[in-house]
Amino acid sequence: MTNYDVVTIGETMLRLTPPNFLRLGQAKSLDVEVGGSESNTAVGLGRLGAKVAWVSRLPRNPLGEIVTQTLTGYGVDTSYVQWSDRDRLGLYFYEEGPAPRGSRVIYDRAGSALSRMVPAHLPEGLFQPGRARLLHLTGITPALSESVAQTLQKAVMLAKQAGWLLSFDVNYRGKLWTTTAARMGCAPFVTTADILFMPLRDAVAIYGVAGDAETAVSQLHREFPHATIVLTLGKEGAIGCEANGGHIVRQPSFPAVGEIGRLGGGDAFTAGFLYGYLYANDNPLPNALGWGAATAAIKYTIPGDMPLIEKSEVEALLTSDGLGRRLSR
Amino acid sequence: MTNYDVVTIGETMLRLTPPNFLRLGQAKSLDVEVGGSESNTAVGLGRLGAKVAWVSRLPRNPLGEIVTQTLTGYGVDTSYVQWSDRDRLGLYFYEEGPAPRGSRVIYDRAGSALSRMVPAHLPEGLFQPGRARLLHLTGITPALSESVAQTLQKAVMLAKQAGWLLSFDVNYRGKLWTTTAARMGCAPFVTTADILFMPLRDAVAIYGVAGDAETAVSQLHREFPHATIVLTLGKEGAIGCEANGGHIVRQPSFPAVGEIGRLGGGDAFTAGFLYGYLYANDNPLPNALGWGAATAAIKYTIPGDMPLIEKSEVEALLTSDGLGRRLSR
Amino acid sequence: MTNYDVVTIGETMLRLTPPNFLRLGQAKSLDVEVGGSESNTAVGLGRLGAKVAWVSRLPRNPLGEIVTQTLTGYGVDTSYVQWSDRDRLGLYFYEEGPAPRGSRVIYDRAGSALSRMVPAHLPEGLFQPGRARLLHLTGITPALSESVAQTLQKAVMLAKQAGWLLSFDVNYRGKLWTTTAARMGCAPFVTTADILFMPLRDAVAIYGVAGDAETAVSQLHREFPHATIVLTLGKEGAIGCEANGGHIVRQPSFPAVGEIGRLGGGDAFTAGFLYGYLYANDNPLPNALGWGAATAAIKYTIPGDMPLIEKSEVEALLTSDGLGRRLSR
Amino acid sequence: MTNYDVVTIGETMLRLTPPNFLRLGQAKSLDVEVGGSESNTAVGLGRLGAKVAWVSRLPRNPLGEIVTQTLTGYGVDTSYVQWSDRDRLGLYFYEEGPAPRGSRVIYDRAGSALSRMVPAHLPEGLFQPGRARLLHLTGITPALSESVAQTLQKAVMLAKQAGWLLSFDVNYRGKLWTTTAARMGCAPFVTTADILFMPLRDAVAIYGVAGDAETAVSQLHREFPHATIVLTLGKEGAIGCEANGGHIVRQPSFPAVGEIGRLGGGDAFTAGFLYGYLYANDNPLPNALGWGAATAAIKYTIPGDMPLIEKSEVEALLTSDGLGRRLSR
Amino acid sequence: MTNYDVVTIGETMLRLTPPNFLRLGQAKSLDVEVGGSESNTAVGLGRLGAKVAWVSRLPRNPLGEIVTQTLTGYGVDTSYVQWSDRDRLGLYFYEEGPAPRGSRVIYDRAGSALSRMVPAHLPEGLFQPGRARLLHLTGITPALSESVAQTLQKAVMLAKQAGWLLSFDVNYRGKLWTTTAARMGCAPFVTTADILFMPLRDAVAIYGVAGDAETAVSQLHREFPHATIVLTLGKEGAIGCEANGGHIVRQPSFPAVGEIGRLGGGDAFTAGFLYGYLYANDNPLPNALGWGAATAAIKYTIPGDMPLIEKSEVEALLTSDGLGRRLSR
Amino acid sequence: MTNYDVVTIGETMLRLTPPNFLRLGQAKSLDVEVGGSESNTAVGLGRLGAKVAWVSRLPRNPLGEIVTQTLTGYGVDTSYVQWSDRDRLGLYFYEEGPAPRGSRVIYDRAGSALSRMVPAHLPEGLFQPGRARLLHLTGITPALSESVAQTLQKAVMLAKQAGWLLSFDVNYRGKLWTTTAARMGCAPFVTTADILFMPLRDAVAIYGVAGDAETAVSQLHREFPHATIVLTLGKEGAIGCEANGGHIVRQPSFPAVGEIGRLGGGDAFTAGFLYGYLYANDNPLPNALGWGAATAAIKYTIPGDMPLIEKSEVEALLTSDGLGRRLSR
Repeated sequence: MTNYDVVTIGETMLRLTPPNFLRLGQAKSLDVEVGGSESNTAVGLGRLGAKVAWVSRLPRNPLGEIVTQTLTGYGVDTSYVQWSDRDRLGLYFYEEGPAPRGSRVIYDRAGSALSRMVPAHLPEGLFQPGRARLLHLTGITPALSESVAQTLQKAVMLAKQAGWLLSFDVNYRGKLWTTTAARMGCAPFVTTADILFMPLRDAVAIYGVAGDAETAVSQLHREFPHATIVLTLGKEGAIGCEANGGHIVRQPSFPAVGEIGRLGGGDAFTAGFLYGYLYANDNPLPNALGWGAATAAIKYTIPGDMPLIEKSEVEALLTSDGLGRRLSR
Repeated sequence: MTNYDVVTIGETMLRLTPPNFLRLGQAKSLDVEVGGSESNTAVGLGRLGAKVAWVSRLPRNPLGEIVTQTLTGYGVDTSYVQWSDRDRLGLYFYEEGPAPRGSRVIYDRAGSALSRMVPAHLPEGLFQPGRARLLHLTGITPALSESVAQTLQKAVMLAKQAGWLLSFDVNYRGKLWTTTAARMGCAPFVTTADILFMPLRDAVAIYGVAGDAETAVSQLHREFPHATIVLTLGKEGAIGCEANGGHIVRQPSFPAVGEIGRLGGGDAFTAGFLYGYLYANDNPLPNALGWGAATAAIKYTIPGDMPLIEKSEVEALLTSDGLGRRLSR
Repeated sequence: MTNYDVVTIGETMLRLTPPNFLRLGQAKSLDVEVGGSESNTAVGLGRLGAKVAWVSRLPRNPLGEIVTQTLTGYGVDTSYVQWSDRDRLGLYFYEEGPAPRGSRVIYDRAGSALSRMVPAHLPEGLFQPGRARLLHLTGITPALSESVAQTLQKAVMLAKQAGWLLSFDVNYRGKLWTTTAARMGCAPFVTTADILFMPLRDAVAIYGVAGDAETAVSQLHREFPHATIVLTLGKEGAIGCEANGGHIVRQPSFPAVGEIGRLGGGDAFTAGFLYGYLYANDNPLPNALGWGAATAAIKYTIPGDMPLIEKSEVEALLTSDGLGRRLSR
Repeated sequence: MTNYDVVTIGETMLRLTPPNFLRLGQAKSLDVEVGGSESNTAVGLGRLGAKVAWVSRLPRNPLGEIVTQTLTGYGVDTSYVQWSDRDRLGLYFYEEGPAPRGSRVIYDRAGSALSRMVPAHLPEGLFQPGRARLLHLTGITPALSESVAQTLQKAVMLAKQAGWLLSFDVNYRGKLWTTTAARMGCAPFVTTADILFMPLRDAVAIYGVAGDAETAVSQLHREFPHATIVLTLGKEGAIGCEANGGHIVRQPSFPAVGEIGRLGGGDAFTAGFLYGYLYANDNPLPNALGWGAATAAIKYTIPGDMPLIEKSEVEALLTSDGLGRRLSR
Repeated sequence: MTNYDVVTIGETMLRLTPPNFLRLGQAKSLDVEVGGSESNTAVGLGRLGAKVAWVSRLPRNPLGEIVTQTLTGYGVDTSYVQWSDRDRLGLYFYEEGPAPRGSRVIYDRAGSALSRMVPAHLPEGLFQPGRARLLHLTGITPALSESVAQTLQKAVMLAKQAGWLLSFDVNYRGKLWTTTAARMGCAPFVTTADILFMPLRDAVAIYGVAGDAETAVSQLHREFPHATIVLTLGKEGAIGCEANGGHIVRQPSFPAVGEIGRLGGGDAFTAGFLYGYLYANDNPLPNALGWGAATAAIKYTIPGDMPLIEKSEVEALLTSDGLGRRLSR
Repeated sequence: MTNYDVVTIGETMLRLTPPNFLRLGQAKSLDVEVGGSESNTAVGLGRLGAKVAWVSRLPRNPLGEIVTQTLTGYGVDTSYVQWSDRDRLGLYFYEEGPAPRGSRVIYDRAGSALSRMVPAHLPEGLFQPGRARLLHLTGITPALSESVAQTLQKAVMLAKQAGWLLSFDVNYRGKLWTTTAARMGCAPFVTTADILFMPLRDAVAIYGVAGDAETAVSQLHREFPHATIVLTLGKEGAIGCEANGGHIVRQPSFPAVGEIGRLGGGDAFTAGFLYGYLYANDNPLPNALGWGAATAAIKYTIPGDMPLIEKSEVEALLTSDGLGRRLSR
């Protein structure tokens, strides 16, 4: 019986992307990728060396199997997945383009197997003391349906009973709900989370904090004093605030010369952060922020949604000058 | 204001197919095709030189536009399409494989824009005397939803009022409804059709006729005496029975050496048949059966769902020994 | 009977390009695109929502049909194309490479069907009052052959008689004629044009104006006082001068972060300009220049020659900060 | 702690194949597959639903990880793989061509990590009573090096001590050793195997039996009376002889209309046979032969080396007329 | 200074083919091949081990260089090619399709550099005694232009003066000239050839011989008594008649299971024949016919126009049962 | 009998690269390139117009033939290659990625045919006075095996006896040997070279010179006074020092806007330098440095390892402003 560092729950979809920056209307073929915020983070953690299980619900057909085949191949335990004989797999069509065209997503996820997950689908036996150290959730999932939101709430209750940590990434998606609905829908998770991630712009939009990073993180600390809070700042990096004390740590971003894979950078940050947090000898916040920033920077050079990055690559970047040139020490 | 030979109504989907006979789980990319029984027939008619309009309902996004862009490029008028701002485009994943593996289809069409078409979406102005000679429908469409079935019934009423012919292809799909439901659902169309297509095996399963082609077509003629009836017989070709008289005509199939595009052969047959029927100088049934069989035989050599075939190619086959070698006369 | 916003006449070729920046000698396959200055502009206008017809001459074979299939699919009316049973389709081989290699074109257009177009091929019935608002021509076409030049002159005469506007893009190509020949060959068009486009460097080379944009546009205005004059300035944007008054308007370019599709930027500018000009409520020149610059900027991110751009995308760029980030107003 | 149906040991290589039947000298790219007799069988068993572990030795680099990523994704436990920091991954270049050209293999496996496996690399803890039901080996592996041969002998000893069954496929490869060397090198395995597979032609060449299938299997039964013996006969199917009794069972082959994936058919047969053998309610030999023949027939339609076949597909073929048309019962 | 077995003169074009049996109108890319009857034969001879020079005229641009790069890479000396600064490279678009669709060629070779070759372009210094054993020409080349026909006649005169053999393949192309014109245009070559190839159907159409192979070859022998005459018979193989004696030899064809590369089979036959003829110890005709038939059979399994076949592969087929299975002797 | 400008000896490998910046673990196919420092330089020289022969040892199989086919096609004489019936072709897997990921190489060259080359494999007859002007070697080759190092030493002796120049590029590879071993292993070549290339960083690491370019080149000049010394400085260009006089020449680099082909830039520099050196009218060092820098800059825009660059392209860059825009003079 395997014990896990991290257990996560969420939806993973098939991503279909025209090759070579073609528009959808120009493409004769679409590249197939697998993507989902939680499973991206799970794959990142798995490649770095952590033990991870991903809990979800998939249709029992070759499309659903592409998801488990891919995640399993990259080191994620998918044995807790629930299989549906009726529902479909969520899809999204992703057209990549540089500015000013920009990228474009057409989500096609209504009626997916995950969106019809109910609390009874949870593998309760998994939620035992010692079976995992941390449960990771994001704000995408409770936005998908009422039954999924209830499922996550039950998972949080079970995880807390088992003594696991909870990490939560607000990950606001304007196509799924309003900021008001997101604030209400995320409340059960942000109030109980031990680690809380959100982009600064979501903090402003949802929690009404100031636009200045240090002020914002302090305001959030006052509202959620028991959580380690991490605000991601785009090209400005990230800022963290320790739980219960409010010590603030800044982390610049690592420069990314070329951006090949725009999607999944935030999930890569979370993967690196959680790895650095769980495996830090001491002083977890600065260590975790560094691992998060380095993992995200490398992700931006990798096609697809997933941070297929080895531990040694993150370590090399952390001890280099930031462009991958190793410092002489 | 264009007048049409044929107007047709139906659903067209995006088809996603692994290249080179890979299984879905092996593919890193999927070839994009556009397919739908009625639009396949419309494209075939358009390529042969007929004027055709295709009426449908599509989502107003780049996926919906792929459909109109493709059909328009192949000569079909799509200006009567209704655009939906909310619904999705139907999809199907098609894995091609030779026997004994066989091909495999995963339909993903629930909630499509077409399935939510209602009678009010019909372009009533189109259904005027002289605007078209024939309305073509298939039994796939009424199986999709109750509102679509009502839409088709209204279309038939309008077409009949305008003095158009009606052709109907039963096109039974076991994944959509039972044979009993199909019999009931198709009743409004088979009883009013001037031309009625069905495979022999569907005739047996739905209308309980005998398995012998000549007996079957005679039984159907007694049941639907006012329709020209066409039974397709797979490798044995087709058999037709003239309306109101019962004269029976047999048509052998043309040999197809290689089968590259299995899908869409029936739709190609219908396209060829209707072209031969509408443009025959006299004796339309034998002429139409020959055009149908020749068009279908060439289609089996063309990738994708659509019969991209020129009139001269069908004519060459009709005056050759059946393998494309032109006879010396 | 459709009425058009714009009618255009010109040559469209098959473009064959090695994928992934390979040199021609390295390629095992060539990507197929369709390109021609006038049809690029026509497609751009069609995608933005204008009604456009493209008049040309093509060989009656599958290569010629690729051209009409593509343009029709993107919304351009090709029903006035003349089909030749003897001539060939013009081709060009285009090798893309960043500086200092640069791109390289091998034209292979001698003997094309369009180059053998004569005045009698013109669809005279089209040139009626009210059938179109504007005829668009470029200086590439009269350079192709004497008979084509005569054809264009007749078209201008017919258009003027019908009361249409004339727009003309000098579009000088050094591989086709000298600047002296271009000056003479373009004279029938620049002297009658209502809108006149040219790059500043061509204005200098052909019309001997000063190299400074404002001086150049004023000098051209004095020479062609009845035309709205537009000089494109590369990364400096464009400058326009109103007909009959000489009011000068400057338009900066929108920054393009990545350049994927170098070809066709000027044609996209023209498409955007004409759309903005024809649909402006008032003050057409500034509006048209903005639409031109925005359409061109987005084009530089799209593979191939054609501006496959939706109206909403141009509008979003025009109300953003120029990188596609929408301004809050 | 998982228990397995089958544990297998062997070498898996990267296969590099020109696409579309090109010769190696024509190819600008090579398709990447993963192939090895034992892992092919393991994947087949895993896809059918059995629990399988594959023991091997791989280089600790991205090429070695492609192997575990692929096998794990298809359901094989690779956690017992030994990782080498020095050796290379075996490769083979495979050029596919129909007769009379035929296919061509260039092996490039010298110095591979597996060829340097020694008995100490075996995961001894795995070889416990109840951890597995059967150990599967092939004659390819002892041919690779003396140290590998010793490793397999130790594995057989451990498996027998743990009470597991042993299955052995002679799988003679003329590029690796002579028939005389093969007879000697396979002796430790054929004499202890509970199930013994070999093609008839190898039985003739190595064990000197008659060329007639029934005589051959009887002669082998006399020599290895305690093993269930299976001779594969190519298009004639297979013949089996029960251990200790000599009851002979014939199994015709299922017709394969198209042959897309020639490699790996024998390994697919073994996978199907072992699945049918281990899961038979009674009368294992006829059941196993049927599952073997059906699995092999479907494999011949699948690109690559691995039998990516679902249990339901084999069952459907076993209850059909052999071409995948389900019988009506 | 190299001496050659064979010198040949002719046109080589770029072939552009849609992949995967797509129609031209469906393709987003075209595969690039190099093809020409004489250079196909030259490559075949070069791969078998003969020394060959190919004389032609090409445009001095990257397209012309693709031709020499390809032929040189496959072992043909292209140093006698004349480079033109003005003319174009001939092209052909080739759409492959199985019956009844059949394949389709669009030639686009007018104005090619080779078609403007004149006698002065011949490398006269090459035509010396001992520099080559044989000059090979085909009936395609004199059909291209009058100046090319004169160039070939001069080449024949020079070759005869130097004591070389002449081989001539009638290779009738109905798209280039009528049978009457072909008879006249080929007269200077068929009357002086030492080896004369033609398909039986061309012999019937051009020289009016009987349709029966043995009668036909005898009639041709009477007309051209000093030539070894070879009639190719498609699936019936070939028949040869020795010069000056009339001894007739029949050669069955080798079965080809799959036909991947239809084009170039005749050129491969010629390559094999000439190799077998020039390298025979004795009895050249039967030996040459066997090598011709075997080389052609293998060619039918190779994509593209060229017989990329090794000597050992032909030898293996000649000593096998015809399907590549080596006979035990 | 051809005389050469340059003869070179070295190893060439097959390079296998995932397309589109994929990681190795993501790729379903690998692009095939041919690469080796000396043959890259040879191809560059050949494309510029020099006569070049490449001496090496390859396996006699289709992989070895890919190497000669490619190099011959690009104009390099490979007729002195020794063919081995036993050894393998060296390979390397090259994963391209922008910073901070960076590129990654997995060499798989142990046991290659070249690494087993011995002095007796040298084509002694080639090393005659007048057969070549210069022998070019690099420090990669003596690092491969002792027997190869001895082979090179014999080649240098033969070349010197024939009166040829020797050029040597240190080309230090840390994966092959230490700096100490490199210093010893390169000694026989650096002490006899007439032209000596090395990157500044290798000069520092191996010869202990100062890090400042001018000081470094002066120190090397004192140690190797009879050689023209060239230090490459990355983005700072190059610096050269004339033999026997010590005159120093600086050469800035040409800006490269996009870097598509990172590998082979140094080999391109060497090709350009040697071409400029051998063909200079006077003042060879500045001329050679300019040709080297321009050839390298263009190479960075070309996929693969080889500088496929025409003489006119280098000349155009040398007379432009460095971005390929031609200066007006």
